[in-house]
Amino acid sequence: MPTAYRTIDARILAALGGIVGERNLIAGDPERLEAYGHDETAEKRYAHLPEAVVKPASTAEVQAIMALASREGIPVTPRGAGSGLSGGCVPAMGGIVLSLERMNAILEIDLDNLMVVAQPGVVTNSINEVLKKEGLMFAGYPMSLETCFLGGNVAENAGGGKAVKYGVTSRYITGLEVVLATGEVLRLGGKLRKDVSGYDLIHLIVGSEGTLAVVTEVTLSLLPVPKRRAVLLCSFPSVAGAIGAVPAVIKESRIVPTSVEYMDKASIIATCSYLNEEIPYQKAEAMLLIEVDGNDDEEVYRAYEAIGEVCVARGADPVYVADNRTTMDRIWNVRRNIAEALKVRSPRQSLEDIVVPTAAITAFMARLEDIAGRFGVEIPCYGHAGDGNLHATVVKPEAWSEEEWHERLTAILAELYEASHALGGRISGEHGIGNKRLAYIGIDLDPATILLMKRVKAAFDPAGILNPGKIFPD
Amino acid sequence: MPTAYRTIDARILAALGGIVGERNLIAGDPERLEAYGHDETAEKRYAHLPEAVVKPASTAEVQAIMALASREGIPVTPRGAGSGLSGGCVPAMGGIVLSLERMNAILEIDLDNLMVVAQPGVVTNSINEVLKKEGLMFAGYPMSLETCFLGGNVAENAGGGKAVKYGVTSRYITGLEVVLATGEVLRLGGKLRKDVSGYDLIHLIVGSEGTLAVVTEVTLSLLPVPKRRAVLLCSFPSVAGAIGAVPAVIKESRIVPTSVEYMDKASIIATCSYLNEEIPYQKAEAMLLIEVDGNDDEEVYRAYEAIGEVCVARGADPVYVADNRTTMDRIWNVRRNIAEALKVRSPRQSLEDIVVPTAAITAFMARLEDIAGRFGVEIPCYGHAGDGNLHATVVKPEAWSEEEWHERLTAILAELYEASHALGGRISGEHGIGNKRLAYIGIDLDPATILLMKRVKAAFDPAGILNPGKIFPD
Repeated sequence: MPTAYRTIDARILAALGGIVGERNLIAGDPERLEAYGHDETAEKRYAHLPEAVVKPASTAEVQAIMALASREGIPVTPRGAGSGLSGGCVPAMGGIVLSLERMNAILEIDLDNLMVVAQPGVVTNSINEVLKKEGLMFAGYPMSLETCFLGGNVAENAGGGKAVKYGVTSRYITGLEVVLATGEVLRLGGKLRKDVSGYDLIHLIVGSEGTLAVVTEVTLSLLPVPKRRAVLLCSFPSVAGAIGAVPAVIKESRIVPTSVEYMDKASIIATCSYLNEEIPYQKAEAMLLIEVDGNDDEEVYRAYEAIGEVCVARGADPVYVADNRTTMDRIWNVRRNIAEALKVRSPRQSLEDIVVPTAAITAFMARLEDIAGRFGVEIPCYGHAGDGNLHATVVKPEAWSEEEWHERLTAILAELYEASHALGGRISGEHGIGNKRLAYIGIDLDPATILLMKRVKAAFDPAGILNPGKIFPD
Repeated sequence: MPTAYRTIDARILAALGGIVGERNLIAGDPERLEAYGHDETAEKRYAHLPEAVVKPASTAEVQAIMALASREGIPVTPRGAGSGLSGGCVPAMGGIVLSLERMNAILEIDLDNLMVVAQPGVVTNSINEVLKKEGLMFAGYPMSLETCFLGGNVAENAGGGKAVKYGVTSRYITGLEVVLATGEVLRLGGKLRKDVSGYDLIHLIVGSEGTLAVVTEVTLSLLPVPKRRAVLLCSFPSVAGAIGAVPAVIKESRIVPTSVEYMDKASIIATCSYLNEEIPYQKAEAMLLIEVDGNDDEEVYRAYEAIGEVCVARGADPVYVADNRTTMDRIWNVRRNIAEALKVRSPRQSLEDIVVPTAAITAFMARLEDIAGRFGVEIPCYGHAGDGNLHATVVKPEAWSEEEWHERLTAILAELYEASHALGGRISGEHGIGNKRLAYIGIDLDPATILLMKRVKAAFDPAGILNPGKIFPD
């Protein structure tokens, strides 16, 4: 990475305006720039104002922007909906924010190949809205599907509620059009269900947080929507009981549910209050939300019976079954709103994204309680337990000063991350490293691995202009 | 890639012997070396003798070999079972063949995390043999499962018979231990179902044909074995009828079968004769073998009824259902033995691995027939039609001289590959490029993409000693 980037001056602004048109260029207006200087990460210290925002309408415009930035040595940070949770789209080194918001078309719904071709600025949920009448779905969507963009899902390799059975974003990406830092356009893959012609650059770019290339078109594969589903809501008298049941679900039932979501008491109460909603047994110490699907009632019935038995044997009481759409939606709505509810209740917080082997979540939760106790801090926890992916959320105690919070949070995160790593886990399962976690990447990755990743980065972006200040410390 | 590599002399042989022990070093004995100079590619011109073969027993030994080769500038080609079909494990530039045959232990069956940790020299099928009693499976195995090694599956990103529903090898790889060309050992991923800490090097290395790193340990995720399955064998009066039904199967039934395999008349007759086997309706012009699975009889029944209807509507007659193990095994045995049967019948041949979007297979088959007709050559065809992956096999006519065969095969392959590319396809879906197809990679990938891939290769292997002469022409 260069030690200094060029500052954007009037000449460069004029060139950018020439590419995207004046109305699609923001500069010199801090109020309008501010909206492009942060994502949904709660702590403001990860925000950074861009010098300019450009909103290209085509791959050709993206290409022209990258060629200019490359020539001039200006950082470029691609941006989707800004709904990320690790600062991935924040222009940490200033320069240009390249917003994909105008490249928001679903280009093709290919019912013969069961593929969709879409631009990165498409709101993820709109894909499934369009597909609904065809009985098809893009199964890799994250929880923020109603606001996030497809391009952001690709950049972060977003996970989601159905990942236990259906995997995360990467499983469904079969083709990408990308613009390299140097301005070249590459078309990788296509409507292909297999492809070993050359290296798999597609899945290297997926999850690379906009540091390797700007994604300008995505081809994704679809699945038929299962005809039936049901949601189990299992109340447990203790956190240990609920968490202990998670690895047992698949192991003992031999059925792969679509989702195994964990919610602790603090998360449930905050969310029910935020939504003015009542879900059954909200006074449990912890709950599992388990969804199963299939193509007929009998199959789904047998699946939830088998899984329900596993939970009951582990102390779940009561187990509530929802098999009508309204009730299932109400329950999922609670789960989906936890992050927002906790943020409203406790705006000073650090939303984490630990992932451990599923059998290690019991041990991790014990470490979490220990850390919370020792620091005297509340850490509500929920998440995709079936993947071992837990959104522990460290909340600033009222009594702590800003300085204390900053200092102690650093220590708490280091301990959480070390605890995860010691159990074979990672500091992020689906939110990414961004600038939020970059100081900690050395906990997960050894120096040789980081060095290799930096060489790969240099192979894509020799001048280091694409989204600098992310993933790896200098 | 360097223009010249160092030749292995007595000093280097002594050093290699010191690392692996004299009995695990082969040199100076052309007869013993010959077995390590080829894979299962029919044409002998892709074979190349190694100067030495080493059989390390541990990661530390692999590391020492790579450090030595790196220091001395000697090519190293990792080798699994040698069952590949593109020359991937052939030492195209001479040097060392690094055979993983002694690193053949299943290190751990983790029933809590539903993961297996294994060395690369494990025969793929032995994993599922061990897992059978647990009701679990590694779903990503290829057709050659009884001979191939797990390490080779990873190197080539092998596909297989269940890929329509379960995907290929890459979907199941969650962790790798690798040795870099320079001798560093990296441990990537682990028993994790999600992981976005840094770039996804795992899925870059999977399918990289041993050109980026030597895989010394594999962690893979397991699935419960579905309790029931059934096989449909659908006879069609024409190739066009059978091939036309393929994209309709999922599209119209809205059910994802585990397999949709295509076999033409020539393939079926050759294989039944080779196996001395009778399968029903072997006199059909073409057949589809479709497998469905599920957890109860009713579910599987409904699935094959729905799919059977689609096939009947497309002209299948008769449709035979096998739902007992013996009959299913007999049918699959025919499918699995086609490659071998055609090789015995026609040893001079080129087994291809075209992949196109599933909706394009009808168009591709028309192009294939046209090419066969114009060149006056027989091209039996079978394969994983549900993935668009077709093993067209160009057979040398008796009447052609060696020179004519060589010259015309080059032209035929170029036309086949161009036809695939024009339909959005690729020259290889699961067998790889190796040295067999490297001259044609430019049909699939544009110069900028190849250049980027070569920069990625250099990031991993700056001296170009790992499996040189593969994938990309100089």
